[in-house]
Amino acid sequence: MRCLKKESPAEGLVLTTARKPRPKAGEVLIRVTHAGICGTDVHIYNWDKWSQGRLRPPLITGHEFVGRVEALGDGVEGLHIDQRVSAEGHITCGHCQYCRTGQGHICQNVKIIGVDCDGCFAEYLVMPQSNVWPVDSRIPDEHAAIFDPLGNAMHTVTSESVAGKSVLIVGAGAIGLFAIPIARSMGAQTIIVAEPNAFRGDLAKTLGADIVINPMKNKISEVIHRDVDQNGVDVMLEMSGHPEGFREGLRSLRGAGTAVLLGIPSEPLAIDWSNDVIFKAARIIGVNGRRMFDTWYQSQRFLISHGSTIDPVLTHRMDLSKYEDGFALLRAGNAGKIILQIA
Amino acid sequence: MRCLKKESPAEGLVLTTARKPRPKAGEVLIRVTHAGICGTDVHIYNWDKWSQGRLRPPLITGHEFVGRVEALGDGVEGLHIDQRVSAEGHITCGHCQYCRTGQGHICQNVKIIGVDCDGCFAEYLVMPQSNVWPVDSRIPDEHAAIFDPLGNAMHTVTSESVAGKSVLIVGAGAIGLFAIPIARSMGAQTIIVAEPNAFRGDLAKTLGADIVINPMKNKISEVIHRDVDQNGVDVMLEMSGHPEGFREGLRSLRGAGTAVLLGIPSEPLAIDWSNDVIFKAARIIGVNGRRMFDTWYQSQRFLISHGSTIDPVLTHRMDLSKYEDGFALLRAGNAGKIILQIA
Amino acid sequence: MRCLKKESPAEGLVLTTARKPRPKAGEVLIRVTHAGICGTDVHIYNWDKWSQGRLRPPLITGHEFVGRVEALGDGVEGLHIDQRVSAEGHITCGHCQYCRTGQGHICQNVKIIGVDCDGCFAEYLVMPQSNVWPVDSRIPDEHAAIFDPLGNAMHTVTSESVAGKSVLIVGAGAIGLFAIPIARSMGAQTIIVAEPNAFRGDLAKTLGADIVINPMKNKISEVIHRDVDQNGVDVMLEMSGHPEGFREGLRSLRGAGTAVLLGIPSEPLAIDWSNDVIFKAARIIGVNGRRMFDTWYQSQRFLISHGSTIDPVLTHRMDLSKYEDGFALLRAGNAGKIILQIA
Amino acid sequence: MRCLKKESPAEGLVLTTARKPRPKAGEVLIRVTHAGICGTDVHIYNWDKWSQGRLRPPLITGHEFVGRVEALGDGVEGLHIDQRVSAEGHITCGHCQYCRTGQGHICQNVKIIGVDCDGCFAEYLVMPQSNVWPVDSRIPDEHAAIFDPLGNAMHTVTSESVAGKSVLIVGAGAIGLFAIPIARSMGAQTIIVAEPNAFRGDLAKTLGADIVINPMKNKISEVIHRDVDQNGVDVMLEMSGHPEGFREGLRSLRGAGTAVLLGIPSEPLAIDWSNDVIFKAARIIGVNGRRMFDTWYQSQRFLISHGSTIDPVLTHRMDLSKYEDGFALLRAGNAGKIILQIA
Repeated sequence: MRCLKKESPAEGLVLTTARKPRPKAGEVLIRVTHAGICGTDVHIYNWDKWSQGRLRPPLITGHEFVGRVEALGDGVEGLHIDQRVSAEGHITCGHCQYCRTGQGHICQNVKIIGVDCDGCFAEYLVMPQSNVWPVDSRIPDEHAAIFDPLGNAMHTVTSESVAGKSVLIVGAGAIGLFAIPIARSMGAQTIIVAEPNAFRGDLAKTLGADIVINPMKNKISEVIHRDVDQNGVDVMLEMSGHPEGFREGLRSLRGAGTAVLLGIPSEPLAIDWSNDVIFKAARIIGVNGRRMFDTWYQSQRFLISHGSTIDPVLTHRMDLSKYEDGFALLRAGNAGKIILQIA
Repeated sequence: MRCLKKESPAEGLVLTTARKPRPKAGEVLIRVTHAGICGTDVHIYNWDKWSQGRLRPPLITGHEFVGRVEALGDGVEGLHIDQRVSAEGHITCGHCQYCRTGQGHICQNVKIIGVDCDGCFAEYLVMPQSNVWPVDSRIPDEHAAIFDPLGNAMHTVTSESVAGKSVLIVGAGAIGLFAIPIARSMGAQTIIVAEPNAFRGDLAKTLGADIVINPMKNKISEVIHRDVDQNGVDVMLEMSGHPEGFREGLRSLRGAGTAVLLGIPSEPLAIDWSNDVIFKAARIIGVNGRRMFDTWYQSQRFLISHGSTIDPVLTHRMDLSKYEDGFALLRAGNAGKIILQIA
Repeated sequence: MRCLKKESPAEGLVLTTARKPRPKAGEVLIRVTHAGICGTDVHIYNWDKWSQGRLRPPLITGHEFVGRVEALGDGVEGLHIDQRVSAEGHITCGHCQYCRTGQGHICQNVKIIGVDCDGCFAEYLVMPQSNVWPVDSRIPDEHAAIFDPLGNAMHTVTSESVAGKSVLIVGAGAIGLFAIPIARSMGAQTIIVAEPNAFRGDLAKTLGADIVINPMKNKISEVIHRDVDQNGVDVMLEMSGHPEGFREGLRSLRGAGTAVLLGIPSEPLAIDWSNDVIFKAARIIGVNGRRMFDTWYQSQRFLISHGSTIDPVLTHRMDLSKYEDGFALLRAGNAGKIILQIA
Repeated sequence: MRCLKKESPAEGLVLTTARKPRPKAGEVLIRVTHAGICGTDVHIYNWDKWSQGRLRPPLITGHEFVGRVEALGDGVEGLHIDQRVSAEGHITCGHCQYCRTGQGHICQNVKIIGVDCDGCFAEYLVMPQSNVWPVDSRIPDEHAAIFDPLGNAMHTVTSESVAGKSVLIVGAGAIGLFAIPIARSMGAQTIIVAEPNAFRGDLAKTLGADIVINPMKNKISEVIHRDVDQNGVDVMLEMSGHPEGFREGLRSLRGAGTAVLLGIPSEPLAIDWSNDVIFKAARIIGVNGRRMFDTWYQSQRFLISHGSTIDPVLTHRMDLSKYEDGFALLRAGNAGKIILQIA
């Protein structure tokens, strides 16, 4: 089968072939039709410090996809051949305290497809049945392919109620962009986006942001306190991991406001705890992955009723063989989400 | 009347006299009988950077006390002469959005007695009626005098449920010490205290801490993961403001655990957000002051049913005139809470 | 001054005159310009059993209004003559545990204007300053006049998160009708309304309900489980107090769903606790009045950004002198909210 | 193997033999050593209306137990022969929305051992691996045998915070009795128990209830408002299902208090919604089963640290062959929890 591999510990990915995998007991073989390129895949392409510490090449990459059931392992019930499915890419151990208490998203023994084991940039992959997500027929393939990053945005937005509130989104990568229509659908009243890249800032506007701040030109917290609310915003969603964006986001928060953190700072980062957290009784919530499977149900509902609102984020689609074009666009910051057509 | 004043912008306090104040409409004149010395008073005595930026001498200091109603201003109802009362020392504006929504503890126009206006290290002070707290007859004077710091501990402990959980308290100053029996009374199962000062570490043991860690000798997070729970503690209460204590406290937290912050770091402080907050889905809650007056009701209940459990914290009592002894003990770290007898 | 009075313990109200009141210390005299007629006023007009047990005529009725500050009592600051204001009609004691802990809406010593003391169907009324609500200039008078019932709807809708959820509203009186655009603005995904009255059912459609069920023709729970979700709705807002509506609402609820109760059943009412609450782990929340003043801030924000969505509810407006027409319309069920023009 | 069977649709159970079951893939064969008799087993013994509607004899009864792993089905990992285990008796489907979102306790396709399929009053039973609970070595067998009813109590007590609060427990059957030390360990300040049976009332006292009310002699709500708090109790745990106990429990609740319902009323039951729920803004929470497996972790922690506090509830132990004595004691109300020794 065709697949996209990190073959050796160096920059780049290689379009090559591999043996079609076979499902063991409890597993499902899936024929991948569409896959999304994630920022994580770009890190892996670039072979950055994080990738070097985590990956063990050779490895098929990719973790966002939709496909069709090709074969069922022993004991798998409730699915049928040719059924359209996506899957949660975090394969949890199922036995630890987190897994047994509905918190599999922080399982400490997790394996992530495309990172710790073979992923979905391939014609076929196997997944445990418990990770498989049957896709509602009303959802188009391109939306079904990006349940994973949409779910990151959904998990972040729903970690604090945004209904009737002002929401600042720091960072408009694909996940930050998805967060705009999701927050709106959940009742956010005012949505402010901070993003230095003009292409993404424009996308944020298209997606319905009320205010887009370019933090290279204006101080985020000053714009917030002057133009939105002198007390600050109710909720801040940190989706950049950028030190100054992070700090300006916290400074922009009202008393008793909530900061939800999804973006990963690359290094330890100092903040003014006294003024920006303690004296104003702020709350900070770390977010990882998607709740299994609460987030998936929420995302499915959202895609059925508000699916078209995310279309502007899907800026490019191309065959798997054109992957170099896709990675180039993402490395330049001139794309939202890119969909690879595989089968 | 006798009083303890910061007379000029310099180190030290002066025992002197001032005119007895008179209550205006809506105010209550209180004859102070007992007052507690707070760490904040030590900062003021020391005339540190924070004091220099905030205080405008001359000013009567002190903000923890109990006394008797001496006189009522016009329109004050529901109180009577000689009634025993304490009072919330944060005088809120009553008009801002925080005040009108039950969040007076983060009123941005707050005035604090002993900091922004005359305080309780005096034979008399006036308070708005809405700040006055009638004291239940079952509570002894020395306990009634420290509703303020006990309330800080109560607010912190009750900001996250501790029932059935493991709780790490970083820093055993008077408030950290109060947090031990409070957490126990709220159902904490295992209480671990980290404190370098031997006198306070011993007090923590006396108050019922299961484990006391000296962070100068052992790494907090290592002890926690080895001796308490390999996943970490459920709740961390940061009461030191110390950079390494703060960081070690976060490192000690389990997945989906909660850190509650009361201690004030003196400067911006870096933490490892990725590993210590985001990947493990931790929550952080900033705490300021006392909830008005939920915290007071909780503290009153606690003092009635578990009052004797805090007695070991009250290490010294002395007449107001001996204040220099009290401040010397606190500056050396060889005291829990010191009570000044005034009338 | 002109006013509408319950003069004697009998059916009806009388348009008469009374002496213009004078503000005492801490009070504000308000010149009423517009007032809304509430279902409670209809009960009082009808002199039903509840009215007979609660009211002590003679009494000026009415509790929903907007007006202008006419005069300020001693000590009132922060307001100015001619300022446009509405006011919370529940005058709380300010001293009980509920009042001192941000729960004034369940103060047990509450006095309600137009019920326990003179109300707003008059050219002037006095209110304690702490009840007065300055109205944002972007809100038209007719909207400002109905902060009270809109606040009941807001308090109910915000008692459980509705974002991304299906919401069943049982009963489409004025408050049930207001709840439709409020729930939508808070992110409700599917809104179903159950209402037997055709006029109100049509209004519900106009206001954006996705499905309107006539419970005289179809069983609510059957429609829900068949057409909305086989598991049931996520949230049920009971706004009718009607026994069968109440029971069908609970039957319509999904596992772990929430029922929020605002409608007042006139008598004790039996439900199937085992199947409709316990086995499905449902939650039930009783709602009374408006949170002071959280609900008012939320309502103000809603009126500024979504005000026009409630216009269809305001079906009639008329001079105070035409009040008999208004009460006749409401008694026949052929009106949403009726505004009385007074000054 | 020996087992206790409902052989035919009639009163009584029969001690008989059955073929030892064999574990299929994913299942575990357990040799039962100790089992508890539940009130549900008494209903089944009595062949009451509920049993007649639900059970399909012949069926081995019993659902509370501890035992040893005897054999492992294909694919079972992480357990070993002779390991001591208990198990969750609710076998969930694993596929419905409730199961996939951490709410398996309300799975609508659940099968309960001893009710819908063969149970644990037998020398052996098979369980799906995902239901098996390895027992900590510090927990004695008799405690390990009653994880199920203890878990019901734990789930109920932890459905609302009781720390620092007054708690009324209505009904002192075995689960109500377990709730006393559990609530105390979770920080309940005052525990009041209402129970008409003298034997159980005395047990409640032994277990540490502050006040035991005999509702045949005194009105629960009157005692509460007079002797505990004029506003009422903070939390009410309904564990009787008895109509008047239920109503008096609700009447005893303070404003904004919470009622948690575990007891199953046998028929629809009327309450005064206006005064007992709506006007006082009460919350009601239905509880079913045990949270999987949050409740099990909480119970395990509790048994390790506070296990001895439940000993008074375990009033009798006897060999399986003496089961008639056990059921006779329970039918007469003269027992707490009875342990059957099997292997």
